[in-house]
Amino acid sequence: MKLHGYFRSSAAWRVRIALGLKGLEAEQAFLHLRKGEQRSEAYLALNPQGLLPAFETDEGEILTQSLAIIEYLDEVYPEVSLLPGSALQRARIRAAALLVATDIHPIQNLKILNRVKALSHDDAVVTEWARQTIDEGLDALNSLLQGQPGPFAFGETPTLADICLIPQLGNARRFGVDLRWPRLLEIEAACKAVPAFAAAQPENQPDAE
Amino acid sequence: MKLHGYFRSSAAWRVRIALGLKGLEAEQAFLHLRKGEQRSEAYLALNPQGLLPAFETDEGEILTQSLAIIEYLDEVYPEVSLLPGSALQRARIRAAALLVATDIHPIQNLKILNRVKALSHDDAVVTEWARQTIDEGLDALNSLLQGQPGPFAFGETPTLADICLIPQLGNARRFGVDLRWPRLLEIEAACKAVPAFAAAQPENQPDAE
Repeated sequence: MKLHGYFRSSAAWRVRIALGLKGLEAEQAFLHLRKGEQRSEAYLALNPQGLLPAFETDEGEILTQSLAIIEYLDEVYPEVSLLPGSALQRARIRAAALLVATDIHPIQNLKILNRVKALSHDDAVVTEWARQTIDEGLDALNSLLQGQPGPFAFGETPTLADICLIPQLGNARRFGVDLRWPRLLEIEAACKAVPAFAAAQPENQPDAE
Repeated sequence: MKLHGYFRSSAAWRVRIALGLKGLEAEQAFLHLRKGEQRSEAYLALNPQGLLPAFETDEGEILTQSLAIIEYLDEVYPEVSLLPGSALQRARIRAAALLVATDIHPIQNLKILNRVKALSHDDAVVTEWARQTIDEGLDALNSLLQGQPGPFAFGETPTLADICLIPQLGNARRFGVDLRWPRLLEIEAACKAVPAFAAAQPENQPDAE
């Protein structure tokens, strides 16, 4: 297995956590996002979106989209389930993960912020765009998790929801979002104590700057 | 079962298609998106994101996020599979669906276009923002589907990928995107011949204007 990523890419970060939770090791290839290496011809042949990550299976098949990769890992290596419980519970976990993956992260990623910058020519406007997106999204996520037992987002083991939340909290800090949700910080503390989450942190990657 | 939606919401449209493909009937409740009814206190109690759709199960449980709702339906009513095949095939189908659901639709929905409008004060800029987002995304999706057999996105039956593509093609037309991908139009033609897709079209909904 091989993961094509970048230390700071939230989506690659999610896959690193999932691999770690399942005790899997994947070779890593690194693309420098700010240098545009994800738009090279070689990488576009792997992922026509020019986004990270791309994942190569042991059979050399290429998969894209972090949530699709993680669902694949969960089906092929089911022992540590990242989507435990009933269909209803799995739907709630997926909804929390998708809230981050559809309605926060794509709106505040580098690609979109560059487009906002091209419109506004003002770094403060760009930062506020990201800050507002993350703040609103995390506030809704906090409401969605009300009534779910801790210490993780959905009880006593980490799930796909925690996997999406932790990188998003990292981005929240980078953009100066006030982390005013004790429940989300409790989840983060629980995750920090899990080696797979610690190992997946951007600063612990070989390509970290 | 009850679906809270709006005739033109792409995400509610996806769920309507999935229900139809599985031969399920859900009561429908309508929220007028442009009048802001999705931000009423009553609706926010169902979906703290204030986004459509929300889905009530027969047991009165509320689910949010269209892809989580459809995965739930696929687990509870597995007979007409929307994610058929091996784990690898399911990952490819999910990746195509997620390409639309994470990297096209959230960037060009009404909420974000209103934010772009507030920055640019120029309708032409807003339209170009949506057009470019959809064009780039569909072009990557077209590449991702290369080598997959037709007439649907992944072979002889519609899947979650087709369910996400069809509403996105509707949005593409609204924003004047040149639909320069014969493969995507072939998929659309195949879907049009399926009653569940036809019945789910916005213009066939009771709240259509």
